[in-house]
Amino acid sequence: MEKMSGVRLNERPLSTFVEALFRKAGASAAGARAVTRAAVDASSRGVDTHGVRLVPYYLKCVQGGRIDGKAKPVFRRLAPGVGHVDGRNGFGHCASYLAVERGMMLAKDAGIAAVAVGNSSHYGAAGCYALAAARAGYAAFSFTTSESVVVPQDGKRAYFGTNPIAFATPVPGAEPLVFDMATSSIPYNRVFLRRATGQALPPEVAVDKSGRMTVDPHAVAALLPLGGLAYGYKGAGLAAVVDILCSCFARGLPGAETVSTMTSDFSFPIPLGHFFIVMNPALFAPPAEYGRTIRSMLKGLRAVPAHRGRKVMAPGDPEIAEAARRRRRGIPLDRATWRALVAAADDLGVSVPRPRAR
Amino acid sequence: MEKMSGVRLNERPLSTFVEALFRKAGASAAGARAVTRAAVDASSRGVDTHGVRLVPYYLKCVQGGRIDGKAKPVFRRLAPGVGHVDGRNGFGHCASYLAVERGMMLAKDAGIAAVAVGNSSHYGAAGCYALAAARAGYAAFSFTTSESVVVPQDGKRAYFGTNPIAFATPVPGAEPLVFDMATSSIPYNRVFLRRATGQALPPEVAVDKSGRMTVDPHAVAALLPLGGLAYGYKGAGLAAVVDILCSCFARGLPGAETVSTMTSDFSFPIPLGHFFIVMNPALFAPPAEYGRTIRSMLKGLRAVPAHRGRKVMAPGDPEIAEAARRRRRGIPLDRATWRALVAAADDLGVSVPRPRAR
Repeated sequence: MEKMSGVRLNERPLSTFVEALFRKAGASAAGARAVTRAAVDASSRGVDTHGVRLVPYYLKCVQGGRIDGKAKPVFRRLAPGVGHVDGRNGFGHCASYLAVERGMMLAKDAGIAAVAVGNSSHYGAAGCYALAAARAGYAAFSFTTSESVVVPQDGKRAYFGTNPIAFATPVPGAEPLVFDMATSSIPYNRVFLRRATGQALPPEVAVDKSGRMTVDPHAVAALLPLGGLAYGYKGAGLAAVVDILCSCFARGLPGAETVSTMTSDFSFPIPLGHFFIVMNPALFAPPAEYGRTIRSMLKGLRAVPAHRGRKVMAPGDPEIAEAARRRRRGIPLDRATWRALVAAADDLGVSVPRPRAR
Repeated sequence: MEKMSGVRLNERPLSTFVEALFRKAGASAAGARAVTRAAVDASSRGVDTHGVRLVPYYLKCVQGGRIDGKAKPVFRRLAPGVGHVDGRNGFGHCASYLAVERGMMLAKDAGIAAVAVGNSSHYGAAGCYALAAARAGYAAFSFTTSESVVVPQDGKRAYFGTNPIAFATPVPGAEPLVFDMATSSIPYNRVFLRRATGQALPPEVAVDKSGRMTVDPHAVAALLPLGGLAYGYKGAGLAAVVDILCSCFARGLPGAETVSTMTSDFSFPIPLGHFFIVMNPALFAPPAEYGRTIRSMLKGLRAVPAHRGRKVMAPGDPEIAEAARRRRRGIPLDRATWRALVAAADDLGVSVPRPRAR
């Protein structure tokens, strides 16, 4: 999480504000609700790169025609454990919440289900959908293709996207565990941010236009996969698996064959794919036993002796702590995001909520 | 793949030899067949760390009592898409092939199935079971817990194992794609090997007993997760997900709570867990469309311009090339492994096949 100077809002007024912006921009009630839910959920947990910061971008997508804000995603059951959602070029968030919901309905009795999503769009933070399942008592994986920005091992040009992998599962008596990672070391947004701040990047996370490793954010042309120069074949391999699930199994295009989402032409859809695996833990183990085992594992992990001034955390622990802070102190928005939201509100005739006093 | 000086054998006589060793050591026909199949399959594809090299170790496990070579794993269907295999402390290989086979039977109509395995033992290379499914037209994930040897982010002591993740899927008209990675950068065997050769390790793959990064193989006390010092929380997070699937969902113990498999007392079982997700691609997309998409993705990936003298490869490409070489030239075994196999054959009264002429 980056330090931010800007404003803070409570979750409720922020949600109401964001949803009103999408409604006025022409989105359906269901579409506006889904994109708002995902964006505010990410921001409420400190996942600022994929939270409300993206709202001005999504508004531009709706207004330009890249995303059909009125589209109603269509679910089709293909087998007792398999479903497909046609996103109809609407909000990826809307198609994805539907996919997870239907995945839970299938997994309730089957024990496990996969729902693939085609003709979708950027769905924000992968973890949102896995967490939605975990909050309802299910475990889930969430995968998505994205913009081709990561070079494969030994390659000089980008091929896969940052193709993230998220997993969440209930922890009886506590918040669900959420793990959410890009298969590159850093997201591309980190490069933009470092260009703004002038700071160098860490080694082995990015390459220049000749495919050579660089730490100069201005020279970056693509990212290296997780694992860096020596072990990047692992991050690249994970990205390939994600791409296969989200294209071959979702009846879409491989990530590298879709148009770059970085184009400034917002007039046509850029169809992305997602893939969800949902499991009903109660059909694998008696709930009390499942609860004992996962709590014991997390307790042991958190008790590992740490380096001075550090603390060993379980996946998602930092977000759980940040969510508690933000419930007390409000959700921070950086200045640029806030300015863009206020400008959009002026254009659309939406009233702007008053930020919290600092 | 390390360079090896030793002998070479063709796959058929090597299999016959290895299977005879296990039979004479007291394993059942099914058990001997499964462990031989997995070990020779890994070696035939160049995965030497997890191939025939482990046979002397498995023989010791059977003879000492750590593995019950006569155990018959028991499958139970828990839901239309969920099964459980009780490994009964037999060969992990035997329980795992059974799990994948039953997983395919469930996924044939359900589209997706998960089979968890408890009371199992070291199953060799994770990729073997995913590949077995892919050879039969199914996609599969394979996960396993292992020895606690990897420090979590910010930690000074090991907690998770190298907990690998493998995925395989059919590629119509070509060999299946197989991706198989440990969630640490290197396997612990690399440390042993470097101790023998005296070579330094790469940076950010291992730590000493105080938890500090070291490149001295003799000082290594544990491994760092994939991602190294800065991004190791990703490798550690993947390891946590694997551990949850293989313990909470498989009704076993978290990896860190099992006895170290590095103990020299071979008299008691060390129950490990595995987890398999099997999918029937034909229930997700029409086979012709699936085939076109995956071939197009792999073609695009392999065509990415590479650095001088290198070639961009898809996951599993090096193993496919090595398997073709080994079909022509035989499977190489290092001297130490060959000597151990010959010694075991002498003890057990098994006749030793003649290696190929060099």
